[in-house]
Amino acid sequence: MHIVITGGAGFLGQRLATRLLARGELRGEAIQRLTLVDQVEPPCPPSDTVDVAGRALDITEPGALDTVLDARPQVVYHLAAVVSSAAEADLDLGMEVNFDATRALLEGCRGRGLANTRLIMASSVAAYGGELPAVLDDMTALQPQNSYGTQKAMCELLINDYSRRGLVDGCVLRLPTIIVRPGRPNAAASSFASSILREPLNGEEAICPVATSLQLFVMSPAKVIEALIHGAEVPGEALAPFRAFMLPGITVSVAEMLDTLRQVAGDEALARVRHEPDPRIEAIVASWPARFETRRAEALGFAGDRSLHDIVMAFIEERSR
Amino acid sequence: MHIVITGGAGFLGQRLATRLLARGELRGEAIQRLTLVDQVEPPCPPSDTVDVAGRALDITEPGALDTVLDARPQVVYHLAAVVSSAAEADLDLGMEVNFDATRALLEGCRGRGLANTRLIMASSVAAYGGELPAVLDDMTALQPQNSYGTQKAMCELLINDYSRRGLVDGCVLRLPTIIVRPGRPNAAASSFASSILREPLNGEEAICPVATSLQLFVMSPAKVIEALIHGAEVPGEALAPFRAFMLPGITVSVAEMLDTLRQVAGDEALARVRHEPDPRIEAIVASWPARFETRRAEALGFAGDRSLHDIVMAFIEERSR
Repeated sequence: MHIVITGGAGFLGQRLATRLLARGELRGEAIQRLTLVDQVEPPCPPSDTVDVAGRALDITEPGALDTVLDARPQVVYHLAAVVSSAAEADLDLGMEVNFDATRALLEGCRGRGLANTRLIMASSVAAYGGELPAVLDDMTALQPQNSYGTQKAMCELLINDYSRRGLVDGCVLRLPTIIVRPGRPNAAASSFASSILREPLNGEEAICPVATSLQLFVMSPAKVIEALIHGAEVPGEALAPFRAFMLPGITVSVAEMLDTLRQVAGDEALARVRHEPDPRIEAIVASWPARFETRRAEALGFAGDRSLHDIVMAFIEERSR
Repeated sequence: MHIVITGGAGFLGQRLATRLLARGELRGEAIQRLTLVDQVEPPCPPSDTVDVAGRALDITEPGALDTVLDARPQVVYHLAAVVSSAAEADLDLGMEVNFDATRALLEGCRGRGLANTRLIMASSVAAYGGELPAVLDDMTALQPQNSYGTQKAMCELLINDYSRRGLVDGCVLRLPTIIVRPGRPNAAASSFASSILREPLNGEEAICPVATSLQLFVMSPAKVIEALIHGAEVPGEALAPFRAFMLPGITVSVAEMLDTLRQVAGDEALARVRHEPDPRIEAIVASWPARFETRRAEALGFAGDRSLHDIVMAFIEERSR
C-alpha cells in the first residue's frame, strides 16, 4: 500500500501521516510507502516499517506530480489548498492551487490508468451559500459566496465526473470548521474559531472578529482524521451517484464556545478574548451554514463528535502530552 | 448597444439574432452592432440599421475572442457548446469547449474591465442528476451524471463567482429540453425529443430510443428566445446570490408527445415513429429530472409555454411560413 498526501506539511497532512503510520495498514493492506508532498519539504514522522518520504513540489507547475503518480499510489489524499481568505484576496492563486492543480492531479491519474486509486479530497462548508434552508441536507445546492468555496465545488464536480467515467476512484469530504486547531492563527477566515479557544487556554489573547450569535458547524481534528481514514476505506460502489458530501459536524454558536471556555478555564481565560468585529471575515463566515442533516455520511459510516465540551477537553489533553 | 453571440451559427444563435434585429433594441437601447461568432462563419440575418458581422473563430484557441471583446460589447450571449453525447464521447473536447472556453471568456471580460457586460450563458437540465427529489427547486443540488452537465455546472459556479467579484455581470439560464427544434437530428442525447415530433410531421420516419414512460421538462424555441432576451434585461442586483436557475418548462412524457402527434397529424404520423431502445441515450436522458418548481425564474419574470399542444401547433405554423 502506497499512500500520497498533498498538503503533507500542513496540520491535517502531518496528523494524518502520523495516524496512518500508527495504524500500519489501510484498506486491509500493510502500508509500505507514504509520500508527503508540499510547497516546502514536509517533516517525515518516523517509522521502522514504512518508507516515508517528503517531497517539496509546487503542484501548480505542469507535471509537478508526475514522479509521485508514476509510483502508482493506491490512495491519494489531496489536502493541498489555498485557504479561504487568501483565495478571496487573490482569484488567480486560488484558481491555480485549488482548481487547476486538482484537475492536473485527475489528469495525472487518468493518464496513468489509476482507475482504482482512491483520491480523497477535502472540500468545505464554504462551498455552501446563498438562500439556504434552515437545515441543509445532502441535496442542498452549492451556491458558494466566496471564491474558495467556488473552487472546491468545481473540484467536487470534476472528481465526481472522472470517477463516474472510471478514470479514478474519488471521494470528497466536505469538512466542517475544524476546532481546535493547534499552532498559530492563519489566513483562513475561520481561523478565529480555533483561536478564541486555543489562545486563551494557552494564556494568550485572542481576537473574536464575529458576533457571538454566529453559529458554526464544527468537527474536532481527531474526528476529521478518522473521517479521512474512513474515506479511503469506504467502498467505491457505495459512493455513487455523487462522491461529495458533508461530514457529520455539530452545530455550535460562538457564545457557546466562549461559555465552554469559561467553564473549562474560568473567567480570566474568557477575559483574554477581545471582540473586534471584522466585516471582511464576518461576511465570509456568515455565509457558511451551521445546521445539516448528514444522512449520506452517516449511512457510509462517518462519525462526528459528541459535544463541544469533549472537543475542548480533547484539545487540553492532547496539548499536555 | 453592441451584442455578441457565441454559437451564433447554431439554431438558437440564429433565431436569437433574428429576434434581436426584429426588436431593434435591448435593455432600452437601440442595437447598433451584432457580432455572431462560431466555428464556421455564421450567416448574418439582414438589417438596415444594425451592423451585423459573422466571425469564424475557434473559441478554444487562446485569445480567440480578443478582438470581439476589445469592442467592449454590453451583452454577450454564450451559447457555444459541445452537445451532451459528444461531451460524453470525448471528455477533452467537452472540457475545452464547454468549460475552458467559458473561463477564457470570463477572463477576457475581467482583463478588459467589462464589469457591466451582461454575460448570458445557456446551461442545461443535464446539470441535475443523482438521488433527486420528486420535484426539484432552486436549491436542489447539481449532481450531474454526465460530463456535459458537469462542465455546465462548473461554468455556473465560475460565472457566479466572477459576477460576485464584480468582474462581469453574469446570468445563467438552465434550459429545459427544447422541442420542437427545426432541422435535422444532432448528436445531443435529447435530439430524439424533437425528432419524434418533427420527422413524422414532415412525413419522415423517426426513431424513439427511450421508453414512452420517460418524462421530460420541455420548452419551445420561441419561449427560450424570449427567456434569452429577458436574461439580458433582468437587473443584475435581482440575480444575487446565485446567478443560475432553471427556466419554467413544462413536464411531458414521451407517451404524451406521441399522443399529441397523433391528435394533430393522425395515426399515419404516429406510425412513422419506430421504437428502437438505445441504452446509451436512455442512460443519459433518464438522469435528467422532469419536475421542477421554478420560483426564482418566475419571480424574475421568465415565462414558459402553456401546453404541449401549443408547442406542436407553433412548430407546424412556423414551418408553413
